[in-house]
Amino acid sequence: MEGVLRGNAAVQRRAIAKAITLLESTRADHRAQADELLTALLPHTGQSFRLGISGVPGVGKSTFIEVLGLYLIASGHRVAVLTIDPSSTVSGGSILGDKTRMEKLSVEERAYIRPSPSSGTLGGVAEKTREAMLVCEAAGYDVVIVETVGVGQSETAVANMTDMFVVMQLPNAGDDLQAIKKGVMELADLVVINKADIDANAAMRAEAQIKSAMRLFGLVNNAMANNKGEAQAADFDKQWHPQVLQLSALHNKGVDAFWAAVMQFKNLQTANGKLASRRQQQALSWMWERIDTGLKHAFRHDPAVGAMLPSLLEQVGNGRLPASTAARNLLSAHAQRA
Amino acid sequence: MEGVLRGNAAVQRRAIAKAITLLESTRADHRAQADELLTALLPHTGQSFRLGISGVPGVGKSTFIEVLGLYLIASGHRVAVLTIDPSSTVSGGSILGDKTRMEKLSVEERAYIRPSPSSGTLGGVAEKTREAMLVCEAAGYDVVIVETVGVGQSETAVANMTDMFVVMQLPNAGDDLQAIKKGVMELADLVVINKADIDANAAMRAEAQIKSAMRLFGLVNNAMANNKGEAQAADFDKQWHPQVLQLSALHNKGVDAFWAAVMQFKNLQTANGKLASRRQQQALSWMWERIDTGLKHAFRHDPAVGAMLPSLLEQVGNGRLPASTAARNLLSAHAQRA
Repeated sequence: MEGVLRGNAAVQRRAIAKAITLLESTRADHRAQADELLTALLPHTGQSFRLGISGVPGVGKSTFIEVLGLYLIASGHRVAVLTIDPSSTVSGGSILGDKTRMEKLSVEERAYIRPSPSSGTLGGVAEKTREAMLVCEAAGYDVVIVETVGVGQSETAVANMTDMFVVMQLPNAGDDLQAIKKGVMELADLVVINKADIDANAAMRAEAQIKSAMRLFGLVNNAMANNKGEAQAADFDKQWHPQVLQLSALHNKGVDAFWAAVMQFKNLQTANGKLASRRQQQALSWMWERIDTGLKHAFRHDPAVGAMLPSLLEQVGNGRLPASTAARNLLSAHAQRA
Repeated sequence: MEGVLRGNAAVQRRAIAKAITLLESTRADHRAQADELLTALLPHTGQSFRLGISGVPGVGKSTFIEVLGLYLIASGHRVAVLTIDPSSTVSGGSILGDKTRMEKLSVEERAYIRPSPSSGTLGGVAEKTREAMLVCEAAGYDVVIVETVGVGQSETAVANMTDMFVVMQLPNAGDDLQAIKKGVMELADLVVINKADIDANAAMRAEAQIKSAMRLFGLVNNAMANNKGEAQAADFDKQWHPQVLQLSALHNKGVDAFWAAVMQFKNLQTANGKLASRRQQQALSWMWERIDTGLKHAFRHDPAVGAMLPSLLEQVGNGRLPASTAARNLLSAHAQRA
């Protein structure tokens, strides 16, 4: 633990890697040590800004995160980059690629880059990433970026562990409105249109269409800002409203405007109390989610359940046994286990 | 059980009411009897068409269901109407009103109307409604309509227990795009614009906007029908594609067209196998949902959990204990119960 909290850069880096490896271990004794370590580190966590970044493959996440990371280091920050790669939880493969990404950032002493845990359920991977984030915070990284690919439930997982969730889009998103998924837009605090320099018109159209979709989904309410009285306008100003920004990570254009928006978000959310309440709510939801997962796991691995399940599934599927009766029988068998 | 399956109308009606009251009872011995009854009735179920109907208060659900019910009875059908009223699960009150609704339909011998169970969680109410549906099917009602108010999770519950899910809209929906909720549109097999006679232009606008929203949400793909080859067009014709219909329940206009669309849906879904697979999947999902609910219930009512929970919630909320550690501690205490 001391190694994580202080020491020279090389010693600390090794201690962080060792701590995260411990967290990722599936051995029960390691897990007990990991719990002890986390509890000890916890008072030293929470001082960073937690930034989630998502986008489909090819949107330029790595390029953007590298440019942003170098920009932040130049401004005196220390930056940790963690990754949740949903593909690794299915195939052991990787959409996000290996450690050779972000070559410039990875050699920086003030940056720490850790790829996704390479196996386990998404819930398990998300838990380990969440815990790795705490280790990085305790080690003094004041910006923690959690990256994920815009597929499936991994976006929700990342949004639920960060202070701000950024969705990256390509300028041709406007050609395919179906790419604007409501579920993701609801999570987004900020939408970034990357590669905006390739086609300025397409980028403008994409921005207009994303804003229109946000209004359609009820995520942005322009009427509130425009038509209400001063008191309500003042209240409106105290809340963050999702924004859309254009930039070009490859040409390092718009990164300063991006960070200015992030800081505006952070200041507003700190002042109106939402940063703190979001973190508290995230911790409690996380606890309940892990409990639900654990309850299901215990049920499905209960030999009494396993013995009954195949026959009951068949009977329910064939319409010979009411689903609710089957559920009650299984729950009753599970409750009577020693 | 015999009374449910046969006998004169009055005897059968009393037997159905008695069976449903038994299902709704919270007494453990009643529950055991109910399970026995359901299992015995199950071979006699599944022959009806299960139609879910949802819409906000004021959209005209009762008027429509009454007109539809009378139309079906005149065509020789027997119609059961069940209701899931989400307000009753919260307040004991009722958005949907009492039994005095549908006065003409309720006096028909070939109609059976049963209001929502008056208390319990939404999951519990949905379970009892699902079971009441089976009782009505065994009693020979060949159209079962399950009605709900367009709020919260009750729409999902109804969609998950019916063969076809219909969403009713008002013609002024076009004025308020936010009323078109993606989650509900994803569930809808058919959208009905009621009161279309009040303002024909508004109804046309509403229809266009609902269709546009369906395309935006990726629920309807016109391109597929228009631009592909014949083989794909033929396959397209074998699938149901959500439709939008205008009608006026109050003036009994469009009810025949509505039922024709329902029959088209039923024939397509029967031919392509989706009616059967949807029912099988509903039964299995229902079983797993009841299991999840039961596991959570057992956890939250475990005295060992109750003793630890307040302190752990506080520590997790305050950031003094990792959420995952708290979850593991609680699960471990729960697993060790006798």
